[in-house]
Amino acid sequence: MATIIDVAARAGVSRQTVSNVLNAPDRVSPDTRRRVEDAITTLNYRPNRSAQNFRAQRSHLLGVDLATVGPHEVAPVLDRFVHALSQQAARRGYHVLLFPRSGDGAVHLSLYETRTVDGFVLVDTERDDPRATALAEQRVPFVTFGRTGATGEHDAVDVDGFAGGQAVAAELVASGRRRPAYVAWPEGSLVGDLRLAGFLAGCEDAGVDPSDVRVLRRLNGVEDGVDAAVTLLEGSERPDAIATVSDLIAVGIIRGMRSLGVRAGNEIRVVGFDDSPLAAHLDPPLTTVRQPLDEVARRVVARFLARLEDPDGPSVTELLEPCLVVRRT
Amino acid sequence: MATIIDVAARAGVSRQTVSNVLNAPDRVSPDTRRRVEDAITTLNYRPNRSAQNFRAQRSHLLGVDLATVGPHEVAPVLDRFVHALSQQAARRGYHVLLFPRSGDGAVHLSLYETRTVDGFVLVDTERDDPRATALAEQRVPFVTFGRTGATGEHDAVDVDGFAGGQAVAAELVASGRRRPAYVAWPEGSLVGDLRLAGFLAGCEDAGVDPSDVRVLRRLNGVEDGVDAAVTLLEGSERPDAIATVSDLIAVGIIRGMRSLGVRAGNEIRVVGFDDSPLAAHLDPPLTTVRQPLDEVARRVVARFLARLEDPDGPSVTELLEPCLVVRRT
Repeated sequence: MATIIDVAARAGVSRQTVSNVLNAPDRVSPDTRRRVEDAITTLNYRPNRSAQNFRAQRSHLLGVDLATVGPHEVAPVLDRFVHALSQQAARRGYHVLLFPRSGDGAVHLSLYETRTVDGFVLVDTERDDPRATALAEQRVPFVTFGRTGATGEHDAVDVDGFAGGQAVAAELVASGRRRPAYVAWPEGSLVGDLRLAGFLAGCEDAGVDPSDVRVLRRLNGVEDGVDAAVTLLEGSERPDAIATVSDLIAVGIIRGMRSLGVRAGNEIRVVGFDDSPLAAHLDPPLTTVRQPLDEVARRVVARFLARLEDPDGPSVTELLEPCLVVRRT
Repeated sequence: MATIIDVAARAGVSRQTVSNVLNAPDRVSPDTRRRVEDAITTLNYRPNRSAQNFRAQRSHLLGVDLATVGPHEVAPVLDRFVHALSQQAARRGYHVLLFPRSGDGAVHLSLYETRTVDGFVLVDTERDDPRATALAEQRVPFVTFGRTGATGEHDAVDVDGFAGGQAVAAELVASGRRRPAYVAWPEGSLVGDLRLAGFLAGCEDAGVDPSDVRVLRRLNGVEDGVDAAVTLLEGSERPDAIATVSDLIAVGIIRGMRSLGVRAGNEIRVVGFDDSPLAAHLDPPLTTVRQPLDEVARRVVARFLARLEDPDGPSVTELLEPCLVVRRT
């Protein structure tokens, strides 16, 4: 690997002259400059990146914190998003730096203050996310994938969960269902609340009274879905469709229905949310809402770079439309 | 954020003196040193990381390339490994830098030559992996998760797939099965060949003639598993157990069996490999082999740091035992 000393020797100049050619070419005569450039090409010399970063104060790294996921937990959307982000960042000369999530943003600030990263993409955001609050206060560049409730106070790219919920309701009513039920997360989750609100609005738009929609609230586990299905099917009036806020709950709903001898998709339709990789592999394959993760990643990177260029510009929230993937349920 | 200039001003010394306290404390009188250190503490000054890295020639970043995963593909083991690696690296002062996989190692070399990373962890390795060959030739520090066939030529940490296959066979025979079948990947995959060889050896150890084990070879898709199950169940002598090389194929086997009215686990047992997050959520929950990913990640990081300290030491391959997780199939 060629060093700056090799280049200087080959060009017959001092090390400082090579440095000048790289960083302040005006100070070097055209003749000398050409000689140094030839030596750089011949030796395939690459200036030390740390040194360049030191001067530019840019690391070209984008920090992403990941929560610890237990061995049986599934985080398919986030894993695929991180893949997509790595691809899209590389197209713009950036790489993704992963680090373990800690709640309040202290690790983020330390990584930024030490110039290890140029800023952050926050995933798995929550309402009033303490990381977003801390980074915004310190004027650290960041973009969230997902909203935090503080719209307008930071850059965000999100998938429009309200529109996704509406699309699910429209599809169910168009296919003749009149007694839909919905299995939601506990109240207070921004993502969950928007998906449910969209579903109820979609019902109303299609002529089904939202107050007739039975809404159960459950945590995000397969067993919670099983329990919800059994509750709904053992009630006095069975629904003719069950929509829900995640594919994981949908897996449980399908299983709970099967335990009572009902196959999803015929008498009772089931619709999930996320189009996680397992959705297409279920039996029967799950109808669900797909998030355009590549496009989210592309826009997150573009928004981040725009923020670096213009630290004081207004914050922007971009919303992308999800799409319904109709399979067998 | 305090700068070196703030520290110098507060301590009443020159910027160079502050720098000396940080980098060559012997050159500074104890008194002055104490004054500067007090100023550093009071102002919470943190030396610029890029500058430190420039001197140390260490980035404290570990590069990991990720293959593009299609929206319906499942890479649960790798995603969980990257999570675990990020956690384990952080404990040793390292972070993970993700970049898109390109085949031959050219991107790796460029990231190393520019000092963007200190080396690599190669995942998803194959026999005679061209990345491993290129990095070994250039003496770039790296550790593979998985073997490449070039044992002894580079550091590797792997899960013992042969032992995993043996454990599956032992469990099946101990539970009274005498006619096991195996669905393998096409010949030539190091990982797949080891799992199959272990299974056949385990059968022999338990008193079942390996030449009586019917082995089908299929690609790694759910549909491939469906097809294999139908082939095996429509044959003249049905197996009483079907073991396979991945959970994804096992999902298909369970589905193919169900299409013929046979529920996995009773008449015919089914055993997967990987304990991917979906295994516990299948119906019935899948018996499978779990890879100890946290421990793999811990050892990969330790081995990498040992390699940085001792570039010329002998290469080491560490093998970890997987464990069988017996569920309902």
